[in-house]
Amino acid sequence: MAGNTYGTVFRVTTFGESHGAAVGAVVDGCPAGLDLDEKDIQKYLDRRKPGQSRFTTARQEADEVEILSGVFEGRTLGTPIALLIRNKDQRSKDYSEIKDIYRPGHADLCFDKKYGFRDYRGGGRSSGRETAGRVAAGAVALKLLSALDIEVTAFSRQIGPVCVPEEKTDIRESRENPLCLPDKDSFIKASEYLDSLRKEGNSAGGIIECIVRGLPAGLGEPVFDKLDAELGKAVISIGAIKGFEVGDGFRSAQVSGRENNDPFMIKDGRIVKGSNHSGGTLGGMSDGSPLVFRAAVKPTPSISQLQKTVSSSGKERIIEIKGRHDPVIVPRAVVVVEAMTGIVLADLYLRNKLSRTDMG
Amino acid sequence: MAGNTYGTVFRVTTFGESHGAAVGAVVDGCPAGLDLDEKDIQKYLDRRKPGQSRFTTARQEADEVEILSGVFEGRTLGTPIALLIRNKDQRSKDYSEIKDIYRPGHADLCFDKKYGFRDYRGGGRSSGRETAGRVAAGAVALKLLSALDIEVTAFSRQIGPVCVPEEKTDIRESRENPLCLPDKDSFIKASEYLDSLRKEGNSAGGIIECIVRGLPAGLGEPVFDKLDAELGKAVISIGAIKGFEVGDGFRSAQVSGRENNDPFMIKDGRIVKGSNHSGGTLGGMSDGSPLVFRAAVKPTPSISQLQKTVSSSGKERIIEIKGRHDPVIVPRAVVVVEAMTGIVLADLYLRNKLSRTDMG
Amino acid sequence: MAGNTYGTVFRVTTFGESHGAAVGAVVDGCPAGLDLDEKDIQKYLDRRKPGQSRFTTARQEADEVEILSGVFEGRTLGTPIALLIRNKDQRSKDYSEIKDIYRPGHADLCFDKKYGFRDYRGGGRSSGRETAGRVAAGAVALKLLSALDIEVTAFSRQIGPVCVPEEKTDIRESRENPLCLPDKDSFIKASEYLDSLRKEGNSAGGIIECIVRGLPAGLGEPVFDKLDAELGKAVISIGAIKGFEVGDGFRSAQVSGRENNDPFMIKDGRIVKGSNHSGGTLGGMSDGSPLVFRAAVKPTPSISQLQKTVSSSGKERIIEIKGRHDPVIVPRAVVVVEAMTGIVLADLYLRNKLSRTDMG
Amino acid sequence: MAGNTYGTVFRVTTFGESHGAAVGAVVDGCPAGLDLDEKDIQKYLDRRKPGQSRFTTARQEADEVEILSGVFEGRTLGTPIALLIRNKDQRSKDYSEIKDIYRPGHADLCFDKKYGFRDYRGGGRSSGRETAGRVAAGAVALKLLSALDIEVTAFSRQIGPVCVPEEKTDIRESRENPLCLPDKDSFIKASEYLDSLRKEGNSAGGIIECIVRGLPAGLGEPVFDKLDAELGKAVISIGAIKGFEVGDGFRSAQVSGRENNDPFMIKDGRIVKGSNHSGGTLGGMSDGSPLVFRAAVKPTPSISQLQKTVSSSGKERIIEIKGRHDPVIVPRAVVVVEAMTGIVLADLYLRNKLSRTDMG
Repeated sequence: MAGNTYGTVFRVTTFGESHGAAVGAVVDGCPAGLDLDEKDIQKYLDRRKPGQSRFTTARQEADEVEILSGVFEGRTLGTPIALLIRNKDQRSKDYSEIKDIYRPGHADLCFDKKYGFRDYRGGGRSSGRETAGRVAAGAVALKLLSALDIEVTAFSRQIGPVCVPEEKTDIRESRENPLCLPDKDSFIKASEYLDSLRKEGNSAGGIIECIVRGLPAGLGEPVFDKLDAELGKAVISIGAIKGFEVGDGFRSAQVSGRENNDPFMIKDGRIVKGSNHSGGTLGGMSDGSPLVFRAAVKPTPSISQLQKTVSSSGKERIIEIKGRHDPVIVPRAVVVVEAMTGIVLADLYLRNKLSRTDMG
Repeated sequence: MAGNTYGTVFRVTTFGESHGAAVGAVVDGCPAGLDLDEKDIQKYLDRRKPGQSRFTTARQEADEVEILSGVFEGRTLGTPIALLIRNKDQRSKDYSEIKDIYRPGHADLCFDKKYGFRDYRGGGRSSGRETAGRVAAGAVALKLLSALDIEVTAFSRQIGPVCVPEEKTDIRESRENPLCLPDKDSFIKASEYLDSLRKEGNSAGGIIECIVRGLPAGLGEPVFDKLDAELGKAVISIGAIKGFEVGDGFRSAQVSGRENNDPFMIKDGRIVKGSNHSGGTLGGMSDGSPLVFRAAVKPTPSISQLQKTVSSSGKERIIEIKGRHDPVIVPRAVVVVEAMTGIVLADLYLRNKLSRTDMG
Repeated sequence: MAGNTYGTVFRVTTFGESHGAAVGAVVDGCPAGLDLDEKDIQKYLDRRKPGQSRFTTARQEADEVEILSGVFEGRTLGTPIALLIRNKDQRSKDYSEIKDIYRPGHADLCFDKKYGFRDYRGGGRSSGRETAGRVAAGAVALKLLSALDIEVTAFSRQIGPVCVPEEKTDIRESRENPLCLPDKDSFIKASEYLDSLRKEGNSAGGIIECIVRGLPAGLGEPVFDKLDAELGKAVISIGAIKGFEVGDGFRSAQVSGRENNDPFMIKDGRIVKGSNHSGGTLGGMSDGSPLVFRAAVKPTPSISQLQKTVSSSGKERIIEIKGRHDPVIVPRAVVVVEAMTGIVLADLYLRNKLSRTDMG
Repeated sequence: MAGNTYGTVFRVTTFGESHGAAVGAVVDGCPAGLDLDEKDIQKYLDRRKPGQSRFTTARQEADEVEILSGVFEGRTLGTPIALLIRNKDQRSKDYSEIKDIYRPGHADLCFDKKYGFRDYRGGGRSSGRETAGRVAAGAVALKLLSALDIEVTAFSRQIGPVCVPEEKTDIRESRENPLCLPDKDSFIKASEYLDSLRKEGNSAGGIIECIVRGLPAGLGEPVFDKLDAELGKAVISIGAIKGFEVGDGFRSAQVSGRENNDPFMIKDGRIVKGSNHSGGTLGGMSDGSPLVFRAAVKPTPSISQLQKTVSSSGKERIIEIKGRHDPVIVPRAVVVVEAMTGIVLADLYLRNKLSRTDMG
């Protein structure tokens, strides 16, 4: 009810505050017999890790994961997989100044209203650090999907105003530059843009795109737990995401049905679609085409410029946020989008296995 | 698991196929003591009802709701509220031609892949008729919210390319015209656009906007079950929705943190925000400002133009869809968005009452 | 949360008050492709139906079920199966006298404390009539199990002090007499006992036993959702059940490990147990032996003798309960035990299909 | 779905194998503002700890709990409380002999059937060690209840054939002797009985009784999630529990309604019951009287006598179980019963706060 669990069959519960002892996750419902070790998880955590370029926070965290349970002799047991990541580089004193102040664009006020008080150190539970648990758990899901030849890839489609056009998209390039942009020219432009923002103590947002290949048709449940609805929730639940669209998304609102419908056809003996305006989902179920969706990320709210705000005792104040912050969180959020997508798909894949009496 | 239930405390389970005996819903978890009768529900169903203008399907359905349980002497008992709406004007023979054909933009193929067969009459469970159950259940939620002075209002922000600008928005007008557009001029333009599409057997989409006033701060759970994440899922789960954004949404992706942050200030002794780029939610919890979100609706996939497609036996075919269809579903979906918003908010409102030891 | 749903994959939501418009259930998560029609359900409802012998209430209810959704051309669609049973023979005026009085052994006081008021007509939601929804839903589960050669059989092991010894047990006989006792002599003795109680306006309880044959090993989840734990909850949730035991149950508490352990052995090339003290479950999973459990049913609290009690306004009163009541509910509860067992097993069967990567 | 989570609002997820790195729990849904530190939890873990008398396993475990998250400055934050207990004294080599053998009375066979393989070291997830996570989580629940003046007390009612009669019950004594028997004479008798069993390599079971005082009326949900049904599930889910009864339980099956009904009366201006055959629950809700239930514990299946069994490859074998085992687990299970009761009651207490519109 407090909402720290995602999924129904493949269930992920995360825990941890930014400056507490640890963050982590428990994965319940992963089937037995999946090959799994720390390395499978660490490689995703390493992509999320801070301090890897000038575009991310200077906080240093090894983010080493320990598997506490659920794996025996290199295989999942079918029991809960508990994943632990100790917090190390906490400089909590950086935050004592904001103890009684509500930072604009942050959840400080909402936490106080909801719970009566909050862990003000680094945002507590609302810190980006919370996503380490998601990534660790998502890595297990992505390993499961990978064994089924389902491949999830996210990248930055846009950083601030710099958008990579469809025709220039080179996904391999997105793994080469620290902004995860799938085009080198765009990377250079975006870097310059970010440098100018950093100098003035400002920040940027962007758009993440995710493509899933290899999904069989029929995943997703037809009413409330539609494939796109579940993805929408999972992705919007990542801090700083303000929008989600699948396929042509908001663009489909202004075209006609004639233009938007994807014709079915036969190719190599299989039913395929002649276009993919739907983004791989029809009626809330995967339709056999690649799944394509995008998420809008707002600019990092922690900026070092002076800002007007109020204190918890109701006084107007001017705030200057110190601490270590990401001038743009889009590139670090890319792997979080992959992780959440993995969790949703693993869950819907397993659920779908129970949809017919003649399956299995 | 099969995903026909929404909510965790305020739980709605819907049922029913388009051409079966009935559609309906069971609402479990509505607190005892709420004044409720059929009229409270009927007024929402009447707004969803087909056949009310030339822009909606000609199917005639009284859509009369019967409360089967959970209400005694005009008040909710705290037990499940079962709501029944009989199907009446089913012309199932209209659909026998598409029994073995996959309509473009529809879920026919996905149903067959998932379940092995499908109820092909009027789309079965994937029909827009499924939303009658949502609206009936949502009306109960909206009644509960209304008693708390929380008011949910949706309208059409855009029909096809005709978008109502912010400054011309008059919400009262949106209840006066059959397209639910909050501007008379825009309504005239959109009507002409739709008439031209109808003549050519084509269809349109649009954008629905929803505003919630009166929400206290702190609703929503900070990690997976964020206010915006739950709304995103609930709204995207409505058939034909392809995108969702809260506050500035996709626009926030291209501005800087300086521009996007909403300053806090004191007004009349209360903490308020100086702008509302966030759309009323910070860190996944309501922030005390009006909640504002938008949903993109794709054009109705049922068009009477000839379309290329395939049969279930894998043959390429030309299809001409008959039956009775909405040239645009945006106006009928407006009340469905209100209903789903009501369900989400009633649920999160109740959940939030358990967040502190010193509440209640 | 309000607890009107049972199961996680195979999910049953029931609704309805004793003297409201209807009772019923929605079954979500039944796989597609199961042959199902009203007769499959009616035959179970007929066994629960009142008015069939002098040992049950004189209330007359046809208890005819209507399938509102989820079945098409004789097969389940994979969508929710809504089941409706109209209430017909409500004599609500019988109950106006107890409107303000708390009947001993009934939930009247608890309902008022919990909800602030109650539907006093016939016990409202706490009436035995609530079980009609369980039986209808359970019939669907039992049909699913039957297709897997899993057979669930319950009967009365004991009525008041009359207990059928193990060696005299003849399950076929239990379907022949109205007390569901598996021994004719015991039936005659119990009938005499009940007649004498009825004459003095008193009532009796008893013990129901249930045996499940054909269960594969491995059903049930090893920690909280153990096979016996789920059965325990499901069975105790039937009104008037005060105890539950599996296998040797309470007797196993006083014997030694040596006596209680069931040795494994090989028979016809298969692993079997040399005895079944465990009742077919080890570590919360089915062990391949017949599942055997018992439930204690308290005597019907509605008796026509004068009883001391209090009114809702806190005055001591003498009450004489009128209305139509079962002098013993054990025989009518037998089919309810089968239904709940069916629901639990269908759910655990489906869940178990997801326990390994190499299944299905 | 894999069933390692208990509760709906107050949700406990446990993890860990007997000989893995750690066991533990995540508590989600504990309201913010509860005073909590490690000592509150440790005192319950210390009661469960092995090696404290000759009647428990010689395994030495400090069982020190670390709170990883969810507590800040001595109070719960409203975020997940992760609790970690490292495993230390694992002698896994003791178990290599049983790697391929199915121990009678154990879940070895079932695990292999369900998952295809198992962690054979110390029973893996089915070890009694799994209950450390339950006790740690239960301690949080019990702290919450204690702040509401709800007090949960369990003790051994019976060890093997030695049963403490009602009239000799002295609960304080049960905290003084290592068998948790509430009567010194019975303790001496039971000790002698256990010593004789230990000498012959045999084991004993018993009955645990639990009494809850201070419960307000109305806790529990009237249909599936009845107070007694939830307790039944929670308690039976503890390994080795074979039966559960509330109030007069199985005895109520043989008495008449006249004898079993508890009259209501007025005492000191409050409604009370003149007897408590119901055990404090009517219609699945607490009735204001003390809640009383009992659980039957089977004898420890690990005995050192020679036993017939089979190997995983289907050969008949004679087994002699070594390792360190409890000759009777009843006393160590007492605190586990309290913990599970605490979890159920905390959950139902919170759920009940949402039952009326006029609450809170």
